[in-house]
Amino acid sequence: MSSKAAVPFSRDALEQVLKRRVSGLYDYGPPGCGFQANIVDTWRKHFILEEDMLEVDTTMLTPYEVLKTSGHVDKFTDWMCKDLKTGEIFRADHLVEEVLEARLKGDKAARGQQVEEKDDKKRKKKVKEIKNVKLEDAVVAEYESHDITNPATGGKLEPPVEFNLMFDTAIGPSGQLKGYLRPETAQGQFLNFAKLLEFNNEKMPFASAAIGKSFRNEISLFLMAEIEHFVDPEDKSHPRFAEVKDLKLKFLPKDVQEAGSNTLVEKTIGEAVSTGMVDNETLGYFIARIYQFLIKIGVDSNRCRFRQHLSNEMAHYASDCWDAELETSYGWVECVGCADRSAYDLSVHSARTNEKLVVRKPLDQPRTVNNFEVDIDKKKFGPKFRKDAGAVTKFLTDRTQCELEDLAKELADTGKISADVPNVGQVEVPAELVKIERVERTEHVREFTPNVIEPSFGLGRIIYSIFEHSFWARPEDKDRSVLSLPPLVAPTKVLVVPLSSHADLTPLVGKITSALRKAQVPFKVDDSSASIGKRYARNDELGTPFGITIDFDTVKDGSVTLRERDSTKQVRGSLDDIVKAVKAITYDGVSWTEGTSSLTPFETVTEEK
Amino acid sequence: MSSKAAVPFSRDALEQVLKRRVSGLYDYGPPGCGFQANIVDTWRKHFILEEDMLEVDTTMLTPYEVLKTSGHVDKFTDWMCKDLKTGEIFRADHLVEEVLEARLKGDKAARGQQVEEKDDKKRKKKVKEIKNVKLEDAVVAEYESHDITNPATGGKLEPPVEFNLMFDTAIGPSGQLKGYLRPETAQGQFLNFAKLLEFNNEKMPFASAAIGKSFRNEISLFLMAEIEHFVDPEDKSHPRFAEVKDLKLKFLPKDVQEAGSNTLVEKTIGEAVSTGMVDNETLGYFIARIYQFLIKIGVDSNRCRFRQHLSNEMAHYASDCWDAELETSYGWVECVGCADRSAYDLSVHSARTNEKLVVRKPLDQPRTVNNFEVDIDKKKFGPKFRKDAGAVTKFLTDRTQCELEDLAKELADTGKISADVPNVGQVEVPAELVKIERVERTEHVREFTPNVIEPSFGLGRIIYSIFEHSFWARPEDKDRSVLSLPPLVAPTKVLVVPLSSHADLTPLVGKITSALRKAQVPFKVDDSSASIGKRYARNDELGTPFGITIDFDTVKDGSVTLRERDSTKQVRGSLDDIVKAVKAITYDGVSWTEGTSSLTPFETVTEEK
Repeated sequence: MSSKAAVPFSRDALEQVLKRRVSGLYDYGPPGCGFQANIVDTWRKHFILEEDMLEVDTTMLTPYEVLKTSGHVDKFTDWMCKDLKTGEIFRADHLVEEVLEARLKGDKAARGQQVEEKDDKKRKKKVKEIKNVKLEDAVVAEYESHDITNPATGGKLEPPVEFNLMFDTAIGPSGQLKGYLRPETAQGQFLNFAKLLEFNNEKMPFASAAIGKSFRNEISLFLMAEIEHFVDPEDKSHPRFAEVKDLKLKFLPKDVQEAGSNTLVEKTIGEAVSTGMVDNETLGYFIARIYQFLIKIGVDSNRCRFRQHLSNEMAHYASDCWDAELETSYGWVECVGCADRSAYDLSVHSARTNEKLVVRKPLDQPRTVNNFEVDIDKKKFGPKFRKDAGAVTKFLTDRTQCELEDLAKELADTGKISADVPNVGQVEVPAELVKIERVERTEHVREFTPNVIEPSFGLGRIIYSIFEHSFWARPEDKDRSVLSLPPLVAPTKVLVVPLSSHADLTPLVGKITSALRKAQVPFKVDDSSASIGKRYARNDELGTPFGITIDFDTVKDGSVTLRERDSTKQVRGSLDDIVKAVKAITYDGVSWTEGTSSLTPFETVTEEK
Repeated sequence: MSSKAAVPFSRDALEQVLKRRVSGLYDYGPPGCGFQANIVDTWRKHFILEEDMLEVDTTMLTPYEVLKTSGHVDKFTDWMCKDLKTGEIFRADHLVEEVLEARLKGDKAARGQQVEEKDDKKRKKKVKEIKNVKLEDAVVAEYESHDITNPATGGKLEPPVEFNLMFDTAIGPSGQLKGYLRPETAQGQFLNFAKLLEFNNEKMPFASAAIGKSFRNEISLFLMAEIEHFVDPEDKSHPRFAEVKDLKLKFLPKDVQEAGSNTLVEKTIGEAVSTGMVDNETLGYFIARIYQFLIKIGVDSNRCRFRQHLSNEMAHYASDCWDAELETSYGWVECVGCADRSAYDLSVHSARTNEKLVVRKPLDQPRTVNNFEVDIDKKKFGPKFRKDAGAVTKFLTDRTQCELEDLAKELADTGKISADVPNVGQVEVPAELVKIERVERTEHVREFTPNVIEPSFGLGRIIYSIFEHSFWARPEDKDRSVLSLPPLVAPTKVLVVPLSSHADLTPLVGKITSALRKAQVPFKVDDSSASIGKRYARNDELGTPFGITIDFDTVKDGSVTLRERDSTKQVRGSLDDIVKAVKAITYDGVSWTEGTSSLTPFETVTEEK
């Protein structure tokens, strides 16, 4: 299949096919939709069933409080500029790119071709800079220095400000409850943590998973699949790591990037973890499983890399993060994130709701601890602090061991505690109302907040990348494009093609379609008057891997021809044997050669056009 | 399995199980989610693959204009009452029910038990009346006469008004475009009609289908699956009707309802169509296929009926409509609608967008038509009507044949046309600017707007009904509940149970789970210290159809025991044979008796508790 590379990739040609055949204006048409359904099905089998995860289907309407707690209300933003006169709003990074590009074109025309290349590099560098650093303050200043105006009217624009990317909506018939359409599925999983742990018989580690639409402004179709793997922070080993440790992957670690290089490091995931490049076994296990999934559904292994986040792009709480990036004509596109988010998510929700989101694990050996404890005299506390009694109590019981040590000292030294209590103000607690002392206890149970390892898939981007990786043109005719989707995920598996509309062939179509239907193999019939070659070509570009041809020999002996899309090889056999071969190649991962070894090779002259 | 009816159904007991084991607060937990995924998968195979439908995945954010055109903005409402003082809002029908119920309870307590039954009937009749007629004007008056107040505060409420049930949101970064979260998937399919017709090589009839979340206030989880079958209004036969015509169904036709009866009519779908009770073959075909689907996924055939819409509850444009209703403890619940919507949907969108949504079908024989045609003198029209020229032209070209006949007469009699043109006002068109005459033409093509037959599934309601239909308690212990989900859709197919935690058994668990994983059979392991009986009981209530037990004989000869959930029957055999039996029963529709005929029956003493 080296022929696949003979005609250079054309994004225009792919977009033609996608627009014409796969998608509607905002929507997936039938082939895109079938492909997406198969990707989701494969994801579910590869992760949820194979790894015994707990799937949840959480609400799309998320109350304000939840997303305030998670940080989305404050930080889930893009920089936008407003034209005060027309009211139009522009995404700042897109606008810079567009305006600089237009100016360069003008300059080029004036100065001739010689400077083009240098300018192009300069512009690309500038645009990249602006996009990559997310228009932070320094860039905003730079932005202004370029005097960017409304490209249509030339009107003055306001300086860029952050706009939140979430869709807001009101929940309940009178809109009492402010909320958002979820920007991700993760929060729904964190909120259900206690219930999921109970469902899992309190056993750790375990993972939950959710597949569903999420909503971000400017992205109309955004299907995500997210896993939240909850793990003991003191033990991030993985029982099945040995099964993947010899898998070789291409990495772009942070030290290489920081040295200004893009050179990929190829090593096994086992080495990556043992050398500490990847933080821990569980993170490494998921990196390997993500890779296996991507290859299974049609990603080109040569155009898949794992890029580590730099320290400054990673959230402060995360301990390590790798993105699976796929190479497309747009560059390397981030398609799957795989982060160790430490205890952050469960901690913030727990702090907000006062619900303990912890795991209690019996200790092999009981252990003795000697901690400061707070003992409040509630009878006296109420009359003294009245309505503030709760807030003062919470303030005292929320202190860390270090803070308690200081308070104990203050109490011993001054006979009282002076504190600035939130929502109350300066307060004095006299020694007769509170004791803070070291107490020795024997613990049989260790209590901890699980860490979260989160593989998060943007299925739409993966689907687009696979289209690019699978799309090629036949060298003998570059207008005949082919989408080499793996049979497992191709929307239609078989095209049934009667040689002609002759009355003798029509009943055979029914016989073959009912055999395929019984075998649950998705098929289409093309009994149009177009030539066989043309009918196959139409389905090659939709990614249909097999064709079954009915001809006059079929009338005589019941045999049919099976054609393979990429090689256009053909074999002949009985209908039963052909269907069996299609099923084995499609669903059991058998190769074409192996699956058709008992069938008769069938030679034709070159396919008609 | 007559034992299933021995313990009366308890909704409380079912709700306990659902809350504890299946769902979270607003969300589906793992078993509910797995069940839902299997229902969707079965739906996709039963309808989309089997019937060769075109699946689409359309946007959830629908612009205002689309839903204004479809009628949702004006008519998709519920009656609500507002408490002006507190700002609370109540659904009017729920409130009446609640308040009347509370009052009756008070009355009962005062007057003793004798009147209870009569009152109950009266109340139920009243509530039913109010709910069924959707609080139309007459009922609103009645509502006021009952002096309904805020049940919590006793405060006065505003009279009921209609609230729209859709969630509104703004589309685009600055919220320029007003829109709604889709209340159904249908509109997205209508908007893509032209593209779908092209994709189907202009062939009729064809169907599109969409599965996805829809949003209606007060319903947080609302998964729909909708089919739009586009058909020639002059030919509503169906090529596969013969395959289903002998299927016997329970009908509640409109004449029976109008006579005040609830008696079901049992007949084949063939008779229902041939007698004209069901309007046409295609509608009848879908009714039959809906029934087959419901039975396949676990609906009790004795608690499924098809109720015809009364003339006054059906939209004015619909020619016939049947609801599949399932009987639950809440009464008969509408779960699937199946309506012949005539040409309404495509006509309104076409009128709004001026895009022709029609099919052109070559005629077998050319035909001569003699129609009135409008011939406008555009050169004179512009100067005469200036900015109104377009509106006046549209007015004239939009007239029906009857209207044109009248206008032609007016033109001949008076030398002009006087007309009230929308958005323009009274206009006079003199005869020298327009001709209206009969023209004879030969047509080779018939152009028509397809009719739409729409089966629309509320999957959440179906799922709940199946839980009720499948839920029973073992007569020997009514606390041991069982959810008899069909193996095909049960979230987990097999529970793997090692007899004890003995070290000899542990490696066998791994052997069995990898065999099941390889066979792609979803399973769970329960190696807790609970008794075998208790472990099975826990999974009986989750609907897991099979159990595989590992004991000390497994160590010796590799054989395992397979247990069936409903009968608690057991058989014994090699691991391979047991897995083969599980696959055949689950996925190929083979019965337990047939699937285990070559295995050895295995007798145990009564299961331990």
